Amino acid sequence: MMTEKKKIKFGALIHGIGGSMASWRHPEASTDASVNFEFYKRQALKAEEGKFDLVFIADGLFINEKSLPHFLNRFEPITILSALAAVTSKIGLVGTLSTSYSEPFTVSRQFGSLDHISGGRAGWNVVTSPLEGSANNYSKTEHPAHPTRYKIAEEYLQVAKGLWDSWEDDAFIRDKESGVFFDKEKLHTLNHQGEFFSVQGPLNIARSKQGQPVIFQAGSSEDGKTLAAKSADAVFTGHDSLEEAKAFYQDVKSRTVQYGRSPEDIVILPGISPIIGRTVEEAERKYHELAELITIENALNYLGRFFEHHDFSQYPLDEPFPDLGDFGSNSFRSGTDKIKQKAKEHHLTLRQVALQAATPKSSFIGTPEHIADLIQQWFEEGGADGFIIHTELASGLHDFVDLVIPILQERGLYRLDYEADTLRGNLEVPIPVNRYARVKAST
Amino acid sequence: MMTEKKKIKFGALIHGIGGSMASWRHPEASTDASVNFEFYKRQALKAEEGKFDLVFIADGLFINEKSLPHFLNRFEPITILSALAAVTSKIGLVGTLSTSYSEPFTVSRQFGSLDHISGGRAGWNVVTSPLEGSANNYSKTEHPAHPTRYKIAEEYLQVAKGLWDSWEDDAFIRDKESGVFFDKEKLHTLNHQGEFFSVQGPLNIARSKQGQPVIFQAGSSEDGKTLAAKSADAVFTGHDSLEEAKAFYQDVKSRTVQYGRSPEDIVILPGISPIIGRTVEEAERKYHELAELITIENALNYLGRFFEHHDFSQYPLDEPFPDLGDFGSNSFRSGTDKIKQKAKEHHLTLRQVALQAATPKSSFIGTPEHIADLIQQWFEEGGADGFIIHTELASGLHDFVDLVIPILQERGLYRLDYEADTLRGNLEVPIPVNRYARVKAST
Repeated sequence: MMTEKKKIKFGALIHGIGGSMASWRHPEASTDASVNFEFYKRQALKAEEGKFDLVFIADGLFINEKSLPHFLNRFEPITILSALAAVTSKIGLVGTLSTSYSEPFTVSRQFGSLDHISGGRAGWNVVTSPLEGSANNYSKTEHPAHPTRYKIAEEYLQVAKGLWDSWEDDAFIRDKESGVFFDKEKLHTLNHQGEFFSVQGPLNIARSKQGQPVIFQAGSSEDGKTLAAKSADAVFTGHDSLEEAKAFYQDVKSRTVQYGRSPEDIVILPGISPIIGRTVEEAERKYHELAELITIENALNYLGRFFEHHDFSQYPLDEPFPDLGDFGSNSFRSGTDKIKQKAKEHHLTLRQVALQAATPKSSFIGTPEHIADLIQQWFEEGGADGFIIHTELASGLHDFVDLVIPILQERGLYRLDYEADTLRGNLEVPIPVNRYARVKAST
Repeated sequence: MMTEKKKIKFGALIHGIGGSMASWRHPEASTDASVNFEFYKRQALKAEEGKFDLVFIADGLFINEKSLPHFLNRFEPITILSALAAVTSKIGLVGTLSTSYSEPFTVSRQFGSLDHISGGRAGWNVVTSPLEGSANNYSKTEHPAHPTRYKIAEEYLQVAKGLWDSWEDDAFIRDKESGVFFDKEKLHTLNHQGEFFSVQGPLNIARSKQGQPVIFQAGSSEDGKTLAAKSADAVFTGHDSLEEAKAFYQDVKSRTVQYGRSPEDIVILPGISPIIGRTVEEAERKYHELAELITIENALNYLGRFFEHHDFSQYPLDEPFPDLGDFGSNSFRSGTDKIKQKAKEHHLTLRQVALQAATPKSSFIGTPEHIADLIQQWFEEGGADGFIIHTELASGLHDFVDLVIPILQERGLYRLDYEADTLRGNLEVPIPVNRYARVKAST
């Protein structure tokens, strides 16, 4: 029997009024989309119509008046994903939650509960929170340093995975006649005592149909890649070019192998922002409509966010990008390094850096055929196992589903229908065997 | 114009396989109900058909092998309420969350987000966690003492209410033409610095249609009643008799007045467990079917839970209830005091105390007319503003909606349809004015 070739995976990032400073000003935009449940429901159902593996909800724990409009007033991931679970049936539900400002018992329960409500479709994007200001919202005197945050995250994930295995899959007997509700031998108390956490357990929810929620990781720093290789099922990343994507892909896959896992155990999903027109001209017009909404003031605020809300308006706009030294490296490390390096290499002015950073950029602009060609190329040349689609306008996702998906299906690169009803099933990542069942099986 | 007389309020506690040790053994019970979304959805829709004000989801943060079956493996409140928000349209969504083991920034966001998803139907039952074992699940060396827990809760609520007011109701301008997304004068940073919490804000979600989520309080100790009188919109309580209910009702209403509020600002909702038969005999048969499922072993475990999972099997069953001194007063203080006092007054044996505690007891047993009479009496004689209905079997709620509700409607005591589409609107508790708008209005 021939094993069928793996298909491309797709996720849809749903982010209300968008990931740029000004897309909400577009004539087509619903300006309350970030707190409009009907909007989220419509986008999730469109992604499910397109047989997407998952919807993705990003998050952050600190705002100020310079934050992106979408960040100021938006749904919290656990709540919106749970609501979407009730109105969808096949698509995965993945959300960001920080290990730096939460408790593993609560977070394991919430994702465990979402996993039950959705019938095995939950995923958790594990982040460590880039913004220093988050500490001030959580009664902390300081934001932990980047390496410490990743040490916390690693221990946190050990605890979460341990708690999820509290009950073996056949622990619940529920025999009315004998009155035995569960098998005491199949209930396990974790008793974790670590550097950052002491968590006894057991968790008060069982494993789901997919065993445990799918673990996503989205940091591209060295620490981030290592965490992914050790502990994640999927990586949400972002690249400016196919070369960069291929290098990252190889890097993470080989790190994964170093930790004794198969390269197939982790799926790598770069984010892309396709802008689709029925003609090249239409696509370019759409791009310029969005780009022209950005003012230089917006652009400086946007850039500032990567650097702990640094005020860039203090520098002259048309002189070389200021030397910030090591500043910013404790937040979005991989992002700030890249910005600084690019400014230096290309001798860019502050104005150029800010506008480039703030403008929704995309190398995926063009006709549906052109977008499909690029996707196929990235997929076949080893740059991606799939993609997270994020579009500034709601219609971008609809265009992708209506126009690009059929081409990829036609080419045999994409599913015609869901293969499974769990997220692990569709992503083709393994169901983790319960650690206690494993112990028994091997003795 | 005559103001219409207030109507009775109703909530439905949905708790899967039930609040007793053994109801899951009943022939009619679905043994996986505590993690079955379709079950929760069906119950919520039945309550909404009955024009109930709210559904209520209880919670706990510690289990061991002696816990109630329902507690071992159940949905987490924020997730199940969010899912129910998506499939209901009028009914309020209230859940328990502990102020002893959570962060105000996260909890304010999650309830704030639920409040937006549901269009103003969220409610938070503020508890302080009775069980000592909870500390071990949250990297804490000890469970805070009862008075400390209430001090934490009080400050926590100040923070939450402050965060909810981060954005004034008209803060979001969203003017595409001018590019002004919000009015900076109407964004407020809390900067709370207290004994237990330091929280800067602002919160990254706006107020909802009902201003802020409805605050429930469910502890009946002195500290609990004071917290309710100061800060709550509703109280979920429980009483063995109308006399007790009236005393509690008077007590909380007069405390509320002492804190400068109107007695109308807080609704008092005792929990009742009606068992309904078309005849008295049918009701009594239903009661015995449930009571007979309880074994003495179950009963001792159930009793133990109130006393920090104390092992009562070490005492002789048919001798007087053991003298436990002050033991248990740091967990369910009002509950354990009552058990000890009753055992002493009536010279009860351990067996009697355990079976009485564990047996689903109810003075609301009988025909629909009889239940309606009792409800009317409690309501009219000042024992309750309404009731939280909890039934061991799913059919109990259906019986109540189908058989008792029409009688109360007939008598003009209960709404024929929802008056409002927010929880505050239906409960008739005031929408809190934004603290910053209030300051301006008074200057």
